[in-house]
Amino acid sequence: MNKLVIVGTVAFDAIETPFGKTDKILGGAGTYIGLSAANFKLDSAVVSVVGEDFPQEYIDLLKNRNINTEGIEVVKGGKTFFWSGKYHNDMNSRDTLVTELNVLADFQPKVPVAYQDAEVVMLGNLHPMVQSSVLDQMTTKPKLVVLDTMNFWMDCALEDLKAIIKRVDVITINDEEARQLSGEYSLVKAAKAIHKMGPKYVVIKKGEHGALLFENEKIFFAPALPLEEVFDPTGAGDTFAGGFAGYIAQTGDYSFNNMKNAIIQGSNLASFCVEKFGTERMLNLKPEEVATRLSQFKELTAFEIN
Amino acid sequence: MNKLVIVGTVAFDAIETPFGKTDKILGGAGTYIGLSAANFKLDSAVVSVVGEDFPQEYIDLLKNRNINTEGIEVVKGGKTFFWSGKYHNDMNSRDTLVTELNVLADFQPKVPVAYQDAEVVMLGNLHPMVQSSVLDQMTTKPKLVVLDTMNFWMDCALEDLKAIIKRVDVITINDEEARQLSGEYSLVKAAKAIHKMGPKYVVIKKGEHGALLFENEKIFFAPALPLEEVFDPTGAGDTFAGGFAGYIAQTGDYSFNNMKNAIIQGSNLASFCVEKFGTERMLNLKPEEVATRLSQFKELTAFEIN
Repeated sequence: MNKLVIVGTVAFDAIETPFGKTDKILGGAGTYIGLSAANFKLDSAVVSVVGEDFPQEYIDLLKNRNINTEGIEVVKGGKTFFWSGKYHNDMNSRDTLVTELNVLADFQPKVPVAYQDAEVVMLGNLHPMVQSSVLDQMTTKPKLVVLDTMNFWMDCALEDLKAIIKRVDVITINDEEARQLSGEYSLVKAAKAIHKMGPKYVVIKKGEHGALLFENEKIFFAPALPLEEVFDPTGAGDTFAGGFAGYIAQTGDYSFNNMKNAIIQGSNLASFCVEKFGTERMLNLKPEEVATRLSQFKELTAFEIN
Repeated sequence: MNKLVIVGTVAFDAIETPFGKTDKILGGAGTYIGLSAANFKLDSAVVSVVGEDFPQEYIDLLKNRNINTEGIEVVKGGKTFFWSGKYHNDMNSRDTLVTELNVLADFQPKVPVAYQDAEVVMLGNLHPMVQSSVLDQMTTKPKLVVLDTMNFWMDCALEDLKAIIKRVDVITINDEEARQLSGEYSLVKAAKAIHKMGPKYVVIKKGEHGALLFENEKIFFAPALPLEEVFDPTGAGDTFAGGFAGYIAQTGDYSFNNMKNAIIQGSNLASFCVEKFGTERMLNLKPEEVATRLSQFKELTAFEIN
């Protein structure tokens, strides 16, 4: 089995949507990526940091899904990263109400020795220097490094961000962020500009409008599954990235054609994530449900023009 | 060859985009639909009205593409419908600068006798009573009636609009309009509500984000081709509708599976329309170009998960 190293936050979230609100619940990019990748056959480890206030039962939820949690440091006397946000009625935009970095402020990731030769590395959204530090610890050059990031780092750590972008094979980024990073409005032009910054593959996430995969002139498009109701979009992007990296790690096929499949797998898993608050749906996801919806994805775009 | 009756404006447009501006040029929904449908093997007629100021050479442009123009009434001493608009930098929104109805104010469409038994009827965006009047003139029940409309008629002629919606097989409408018409934010729920209003097939156009086709529980999604540059979006929706109706008329196959192909054909033709100002690109479109881009559409969404 191929190994997948995931770095990302393991955290508390409090979420408000037009459908309701939650207290502090399990969240964080590392959590969503890990839970999503756990739907594939691989050997994964999450590298993160939490405070002493973080319940062991949350760690156990990951362990029970065969995710190695050795790399999740527990800081004595520390408090766990906390994010709180409120979604607008259209569910496409949100306000951040609270961001408490807490133990994340001094996070120095430590990749467990047994995972320093992992085939695939998924760098979840974090300070670019933290992402770099994970790559520095790899003793064998990974077959594929996937980077997720966001506009926040473009605003406050652009040079560090450019440095890590240069070192990765795949970048996943949303449409507005791709425009900001490249200075191009057209996503086709934006992808070209981002290719020049390093990544061989550029994945542009468009939320409910699907995702685009670029490898130079080649383009692939995956729709989001049209849903009756989006209950809570939190974690959808991370779940997408986790499905993408997880499927690649399972198959060990790093070709453009297999990236297409990985994009579909990521979109498929993300379509579940938004059906309930937080991680709830991902924690109660059956393989049959994943398979059934995957066939819906095929029907959604398949056509046969003679 | 199947017959296709198209009703829609044949008009003057003046367009301003971030790339430049035009004087009065050939425009109108009927024009775009006709030019797009002309890419297929069928016997089409455009039903419309123009003033005495309308150049014969514009009529000839349609005739030269085997479009019957008998149903385009020329009003002596009348002035042609004129629309002028300016696109914002994102090309997704626009301001209407001028709307002069002129001869359109009293338009009473007359379907040429030879086309009153047409298999397919495409009702371009117009007052719902005008669209109804075309259907009233059909001596044989058409195999398929396609309706295009817009928010303007929801605001000022909702009951008339509902009456014509009840009589059609397919409605094409954009996402915001679908939400307005149905009162539902989710497009899946909106489509369900619109099904109940009459149409067996609901097509929701999302511009650069593609189009969705619904037949009750069945959903098909067609992406828009990602383009380096959108030069002028005017007429893209009509070109989409014309390609859709034209392909259906050519094939004479009214099944859901063939509607999928028709959606792709419409999306393909619309991708050309936006590359130049007004009708310019559609007037200089070669069959080889259409075929080549169609294969790009296949590559764009095809994947093979084992």
